[in-house]
Amino acid sequence: MFYGGDYNPEQWTAPVWHEDIALMRAAGVTLVTVGVFAWSALERAPGRYDFGWLDTVLDGLADAGIRVALATPTAAPPPWFSRRHPESLPVGPDGVRLSPGSRDTYCASAPAYRAAARRIALALGARYGGHPALALWRVHNEYGTTCYCDLTAAAFRAWLQRRYGSLDALNDAWTTAFWSQRYGDWELVLPPRRTQYLANPTQVLDFRRFTSDELLDAYREQRDVLRAAAPGIPVTTNYVLGDWVPVDHVRWSREVDLVAVDHYPSSSGPSAEEEAAFLADLARGWSGDKGWLLMESAPNLIYTPGRMHTKEPGRMTRQALAAVARGSRGAMFFQWRASRGGAELFHSALVPHAGTDSRVFREALALGPTLARTTEVLGAAVEARVAVGYHEPSAWALAATVLPSDAVDHRAEARHAHRALSRLGITCDVVGDLDDLSRYAVLVLPCWYLLTDSQAAELTAWVTGGGRLVVTYLSGVADEHARVRLGGYPGALRELLGVRVEEFHPLASGWSETVHLAGAVATVFYAGGGPAVTRHRVGSGDAWYVSTRLADDAYADLLGAIATEAGVAPVRPRPPAGVEVVRRTAGDRSWLFAINHGEMPYDLRAEGIDLLTGETVTWNTVLRPGAAMVVREASASARSAPGVGD
Amino acid sequence: MFYGGDYNPEQWTAPVWHEDIALMRAAGVTLVTVGVFAWSALERAPGRYDFGWLDTVLDGLADAGIRVALATPTAAPPPWFSRRHPESLPVGPDGVRLSPGSRDTYCASAPAYRAAARRIALALGARYGGHPALALWRVHNEYGTTCYCDLTAAAFRAWLQRRYGSLDALNDAWTTAFWSQRYGDWELVLPPRRTQYLANPTQVLDFRRFTSDELLDAYREQRDVLRAAAPGIPVTTNYVLGDWVPVDHVRWSREVDLVAVDHYPSSSGPSAEEEAAFLADLARGWSGDKGWLLMESAPNLIYTPGRMHTKEPGRMTRQALAAVARGSRGAMFFQWRASRGGAELFHSALVPHAGTDSRVFREALALGPTLARTTEVLGAAVEARVAVGYHEPSAWALAATVLPSDAVDHRAEARHAHRALSRLGITCDVVGDLDDLSRYAVLVLPCWYLLTDSQAAELTAWVTGGGRLVVTYLSGVADEHARVRLGGYPGALRELLGVRVEEFHPLASGWSETVHLAGAVATVFYAGGGPAVTRHRVGSGDAWYVSTRLADDAYADLLGAIATEAGVAPVRPRPPAGVEVVRRTAGDRSWLFAINHGEMPYDLRAEGIDLLTGETVTWNTVLRPGAAMVVREASASARSAPGVGD
Amino acid sequence: MFYGGDYNPEQWTAPVWHEDIALMRAAGVTLVTVGVFAWSALERAPGRYDFGWLDTVLDGLADAGIRVALATPTAAPPPWFSRRHPESLPVGPDGVRLSPGSRDTYCASAPAYRAAARRIALALGARYGGHPALALWRVHNEYGTTCYCDLTAAAFRAWLQRRYGSLDALNDAWTTAFWSQRYGDWELVLPPRRTQYLANPTQVLDFRRFTSDELLDAYREQRDVLRAAAPGIPVTTNYVLGDWVPVDHVRWSREVDLVAVDHYPSSSGPSAEEEAAFLADLARGWSGDKGWLLMESAPNLIYTPGRMHTKEPGRMTRQALAAVARGSRGAMFFQWRASRGGAELFHSALVPHAGTDSRVFREALALGPTLARTTEVLGAAVEARVAVGYHEPSAWALAATVLPSDAVDHRAEARHAHRALSRLGITCDVVGDLDDLSRYAVLVLPCWYLLTDSQAAELTAWVTGGGRLVVTYLSGVADEHARVRLGGYPGALRELLGVRVEEFHPLASGWSETVHLAGAVATVFYAGGGPAVTRHRVGSGDAWYVSTRLADDAYADLLGAIATEAGVAPVRPRPPAGVEVVRRTAGDRSWLFAINHGEMPYDLRAEGIDLLTGETVTWNTVLRPGAAMVVREASASARSAPGVGD
Repeated sequence: MFYGGDYNPEQWTAPVWHEDIALMRAAGVTLVTVGVFAWSALERAPGRYDFGWLDTVLDGLADAGIRVALATPTAAPPPWFSRRHPESLPVGPDGVRLSPGSRDTYCASAPAYRAAARRIALALGARYGGHPALALWRVHNEYGTTCYCDLTAAAFRAWLQRRYGSLDALNDAWTTAFWSQRYGDWELVLPPRRTQYLANPTQVLDFRRFTSDELLDAYREQRDVLRAAAPGIPVTTNYVLGDWVPVDHVRWSREVDLVAVDHYPSSSGPSAEEEAAFLADLARGWSGDKGWLLMESAPNLIYTPGRMHTKEPGRMTRQALAAVARGSRGAMFFQWRASRGGAELFHSALVPHAGTDSRVFREALALGPTLARTTEVLGAAVEARVAVGYHEPSAWALAATVLPSDAVDHRAEARHAHRALSRLGITCDVVGDLDDLSRYAVLVLPCWYLLTDSQAAELTAWVTGGGRLVVTYLSGVADEHARVRLGGYPGALRELLGVRVEEFHPLASGWSETVHLAGAVATVFYAGGGPAVTRHRVGSGDAWYVSTRLADDAYADLLGAIATEAGVAPVRPRPPAGVEVVRRTAGDRSWLFAINHGEMPYDLRAEGIDLLTGETVTWNTVLRPGAAMVVREASASARSAPGVGD
Repeated sequence: MFYGGDYNPEQWTAPVWHEDIALMRAAGVTLVTVGVFAWSALERAPGRYDFGWLDTVLDGLADAGIRVALATPTAAPPPWFSRRHPESLPVGPDGVRLSPGSRDTYCASAPAYRAAARRIALALGARYGGHPALALWRVHNEYGTTCYCDLTAAAFRAWLQRRYGSLDALNDAWTTAFWSQRYGDWELVLPPRRTQYLANPTQVLDFRRFTSDELLDAYREQRDVLRAAAPGIPVTTNYVLGDWVPVDHVRWSREVDLVAVDHYPSSSGPSAEEEAAFLADLARGWSGDKGWLLMESAPNLIYTPGRMHTKEPGRMTRQALAAVARGSRGAMFFQWRASRGGAELFHSALVPHAGTDSRVFREALALGPTLARTTEVLGAAVEARVAVGYHEPSAWALAATVLPSDAVDHRAEARHAHRALSRLGITCDVVGDLDDLSRYAVLVLPCWYLLTDSQAAELTAWVTGGGRLVVTYLSGVADEHARVRLGGYPGALRELLGVRVEEFHPLASGWSETVHLAGAVATVFYAGGGPAVTRHRVGSGDAWYVSTRLADDAYADLLGAIATEAGVAPVRPRPPAGVEVVRRTAGDRSWLFAINHGEMPYDLRAEGIDLLTGETVTWNTVLRPGAAMVVREASASARSAPGVGD
Repeated sequence: MFYGGDYNPEQWTAPVWHEDIALMRAAGVTLVTVGVFAWSALERAPGRYDFGWLDTVLDGLADAGIRVALATPTAAPPPWFSRRHPESLPVGPDGVRLSPGSRDTYCASAPAYRAAARRIALALGARYGGHPALALWRVHNEYGTTCYCDLTAAAFRAWLQRRYGSLDALNDAWTTAFWSQRYGDWELVLPPRRTQYLANPTQVLDFRRFTSDELLDAYREQRDVLRAAAPGIPVTTNYVLGDWVPVDHVRWSREVDLVAVDHYPSSSGPSAEEEAAFLADLARGWSGDKGWLLMESAPNLIYTPGRMHTKEPGRMTRQALAAVARGSRGAMFFQWRASRGGAELFHSALVPHAGTDSRVFREALALGPTLARTTEVLGAAVEARVAVGYHEPSAWALAATVLPSDAVDHRAEARHAHRALSRLGITCDVVGDLDDLSRYAVLVLPCWYLLTDSQAAELTAWVTGGGRLVVTYLSGVADEHARVRLGGYPGALRELLGVRVEEFHPLASGWSETVHLAGAVATVFYAGGGPAVTRHRVGSGDAWYVSTRLADDAYADLLGAIATEAGVAPVRPRPPAGVEVVRRTAGDRSWLFAINHGEMPYDLRAEGIDLLTGETVTWNTVLRPGAAMVVREASASARSAPGVGD
């Protein structure tokens, strides 16, 4: 079970390193990430490497039995590099070339940057590939820089040529007949730079796809260098979510050995835990069988707009256990020791500015042993027979398009479905592609805007075979090129859903539609009488259409009824707000994670041994507010949902 | 009576063209606008024209008896053009040259652009000047692009040399003695590019005037090419209103054969109809005797901030009739068939994505015959003895100046006066110049900031001869160079109004002033005792001054009293909210348009024949909510305003 | 006693000059500022000077006995200069070079600009150094333009080399180990231009320090030219406050002969007077013994966001007297005569657009004699035994740093302390450095973020010697390089305060902390039980720590108790809201300024002669709302605070 965080010895002196390693041992730290942003410390001038300090640190960590995720430092090229290769600095859509002085000041399409990144990766691989501390390579940091320069433009054109083959195909896909944008020569195609009025939405969408692939190429180059240098050491890069991140993690997850995610929730209330649960289920959806790890999180702060909120005592521990409950191979933090200067000097740390005589460090000391007690769950699966779709390209397309309402947000819709299922006590995967639905009984597609013909066919086959599909508004409205499918919405799914939508009517808060039944039956109606929610029996399955944004309770009721019909039981029925109950299983064995973030005691109704305390848990055990248990369940029968009386 | 809309065959294939023409015939479409934004389809490479598809479409339309407003496509130069002539791309005030990828990516001062625009206009004129479908040339689309490049700077200087003759005159007009801006050489004069702090307001004002004239030159060049190629075919361009539009439509209206306006109201409530009425009366004011046409409007949507509102059933038809009531030669829509891709793919259309089996298309089918039944009103005048001033340069000057309050908005003030008159049931013209006031009994000048000496003299002569002038705050405060006239506000009108304003006191919401009487008498007082509204009898007329922003009711009461004294009767007295009643007359004949956008029945009190139904209308006829009538009035006496009891 | 304002004869003709001088005499004007922004009128082409008009004006003023603050016009280079030296135009952080067309379009690091500024200063010095009207040189106007160009970058590097000596020292101070920013060559160091993500806060802080010093160099060059040309004539420049002003006035005040400040309050309510009092006490704090002058203020307007508020009758006079009460050598206004054009044409003036027949001008006529009656207070000191710290570099550092809360605002905190003291009736100095605290009994340091070791030592010595120090949250947390001092907050003052702060907990509105006592005792507790306010007796003094943002009343109560213990008496105890009572003293003599901005009568309790009326003031005199008195106090005993019964 991984426990630790980002560690930046280059900001400190040798005495501090020694103190840190001793403190890490005391806290039961098992893994630290070293080397992120250390380029200017590692290569002080072109080709002049200084590995001495890193040797010392890695040797010390190895001696202490602490493993290292060694990072390549390529997210922050040194000042000398930017001066030598100004063409490697990113350019904004307005043509302004950015200056060094922060981080992420690179253009992934600049050959000089790519070559330098390979070189420093090779140097690290050569020197540390066989180091006993090395457990994992972490390439770069939070890939996500977008550039609009001429080098990028050339790479974008090459990508488009591979994607479309011919200009005719591109003109068709981009609908360049609109507003006289027909391209007669590849050289005319550009990134979506600042222009006079609305941009072409497919150009914007493809540019995000391209940027994701271009960054992925940059990642793969380093990965391949590191694999060659150190066969057998897994390689990954840490993901981050956000509107600014032009990365389709589905495609990336095929290229990493372990899905590593950073998570900084955006609000301090209970939705922080909801958001974390969503991201965990999403990371698990991306990772498939290769596993995932919460690579960065803030120990004791939550960054809300305009203010850092202090996590309440115990919350860090509960959040760490919640990640493990949903499959994380541990809990890692940014950062080990707080910086004394630089742009993030008030960022949270396990060793805060105040030092070790602090609540935060004491909680860190306790967390290591706590996590260690859960080690037996490593490798156990999280059971989920329900899936919620989350499709980055649909989110991009919806953001790029002038929609009938600005309020449409694919991520919010996916989280809405996830929240409804959580209320029911049903564990779900959040999935980014529709390639293998066979393991699921129920699938929710919320505002999954872009749908290919073959995806529509796969969905139809899956429903026909017994799947329960729940589609919400704007799903399947467009093809993969963000072109509306004609003849009535949602074009790709009209037949499967047995409906034909004539018009959208976004409301001041919400959404409504004129829905015509074409095989489906209405189960919920608008105040004006038209169908709002419909059901279409297809083969041995059902295709539901939700043409509006349901209130939380109504959404949970609907999904609960569908799940019940599909034979999907909750882990525990409708746990109260703030209570997470998730089961992991491995063959006959199972563990029930129960975490009470709320303010009321919870009658858990479980039988077995709590790994955290070693105590026996009986049917009458109460989970106190703020407490968590990891119950190794007594028997298969103990797993069944509680009976009458609940 | 024109009925139809923008049609973009270049986005579709031949089978769709054939379907479209059949559908247009079914709907009674009489005019479609073709060719807007079709440049890259018409000229696929420099000088390589492809007219075949347009031949087919125009021939098909001609065969179907549908006329064409043939557009020149110059608002969207093709990608190849922008690459070949990068100097033709517009530059922002920050020096950033925009990229292609949208529309309107041209600089009207770039010789290469102007030459290319003439060439494509000539090619269209040569090929289609004699085409039987051709009814109208529509040059460009919504002229309004502002550029700050060096070519523009040179053109601006040439314009200034023509305007001022000498640098001394410019220095005086621009008050360059302020902040050390005196120009000693013409080459020093620049557009108002991004600068350190506040810009010179007269420089900004003159730059907008210049931009309007420069775009007008571009229009005129194309118009002259088309006139030469096709004598007898009227030429126009479609106007659009908005803060971003640097165009003084008064000057443009002298150069078009038909005033064509686009209108997209900005809110979905009843103010949409008020806004449409204002714009219609403004278009009529611009057009004088040459007539006007609602060239673009959205069939079934209203674009409000952040959300598209679906028009309620019947609203499209009522809005079309409301335009005809106020003089439009028909009702045209953007667009005929919804695009499947591109930046405006959810823009409204008569043939929506859902196709012809739709409420919208069914209403479109009915609208053609409805409009056709009103054909006999073509050429009839809209009677208005009251005028409201709307002065684009005053709006610009107020926007460019650091005023005592940010809340001053010339357009809002003009709409306020228009709304007050509408409440009274009084039809007014909205006029952009003061050249011929002889037809009016009452004139309202709302925040008409810039006033020349000769305009002031003309107003004095008109009042002396019996006119009733109502001037609101900030009118006449500055001269044509936006310099304050000294000695007390409003300098140009002080004598005529018989007042002297010492200070402005903008309020949190509203405006007040310290007004001294100098011949006028006060009719309304501020709470503090000072004059708020004053009246000055001059010759056989009256000059009123309104030093504050009156509430709607008080404004209507004031204007109603003034109109009554002037012998101006409403068409129908104080129609309820949402009811429009407008009369058109031709010699002895008259038609009463009555449109009920509201929710209550209205006792219309008219006698005659309703053109829309052919039914007889009697004194007791009730106009239902949502309904409209066009009553060919039985006799001159029927026109008089209702008698006692109303 | 100075009375007058900015006067721009270059905007007017000779007849107006003659009228103006006559009006100034009538109003008792004693000083006018001439020449600001007159460069293009004085030097119409390179080297071609036109001094004729200025000769005439200065001669006329001298004849009328009116003195002149002659300004150098260097804040607004003429168009010809900007064209000849485009490199002298400032460049924004995005690399956009600004255009002329406003004011302040200069780069202080451009050699051509600096040379031209020296030349015009020399020309003015040579011609007018001996002019009888000359009383004061005013260099430039509101220095504050920031530039990011390459010339600036070079100057920044030179400044950094002087500051740090070595790159190692810079790398250490800037914590460049964070995010790989280590500089291996001076050439790599740049201004904080637009970059990808968060900037280095110490780089930003040093760039502001540099900009202040660079502008100060530009000032000093002109000052030295003028001093050489006219020995004995004092030289100054007018300060302005604001977030955009990168100027540390403490350093500037060492270089001027008179501290001159411009003040435009930002709200129209009573806080305008509070803000003016704060700025006056701050100007006095900067000026030390050399005196200060309110150089610019608006006669009859207050500029609030979006709206200009008209000052109520009498308010201009009260505000002028309030400045004198706090040590200003008079009251000067922007401007004498309102401009008729240009960017500030609605700016306030003593002679408004309406002319002399106006309330404003009548109040201006009365103000001259009023101020003249207070002449005997010139040179008298303002007594203050309490000081509040205001530290521009701390304000900059807090603004540059990603803090736990966006709501931290050094200036607001300083004003908060000042307001609390004002409520108590205690006069304070606002001080910008801690070099000489011996005159103070109490010192409040509000969010004084940056503290050097030697400053901490001086504070300790001062407290040990009997000083009462009140430190609020975030003070002393960082060193002069904005690096957090480790081991517990506030590092530099932990020992002196006898506390150790473990964590910050910013609240939705407010701030709280986990405070551990380490010698101090808690006097106020948080609801949760922890110390909120603490007191630490050190030597014969006290060191208080306020870890939260206190409500106004609680803050006043706390500071009142501390002041009482320190033996500091209010001038008058807790004057009601809106009443200012300030004493000036000179040897045995004293004057009590009492100004009632509020709405209730005030029992002043003073004895002496009111200089404004010549009337005797007795113990029972009531100060009416809106009234002001300057009481020459009868005796030393009359100065004592009111006795029992108050």
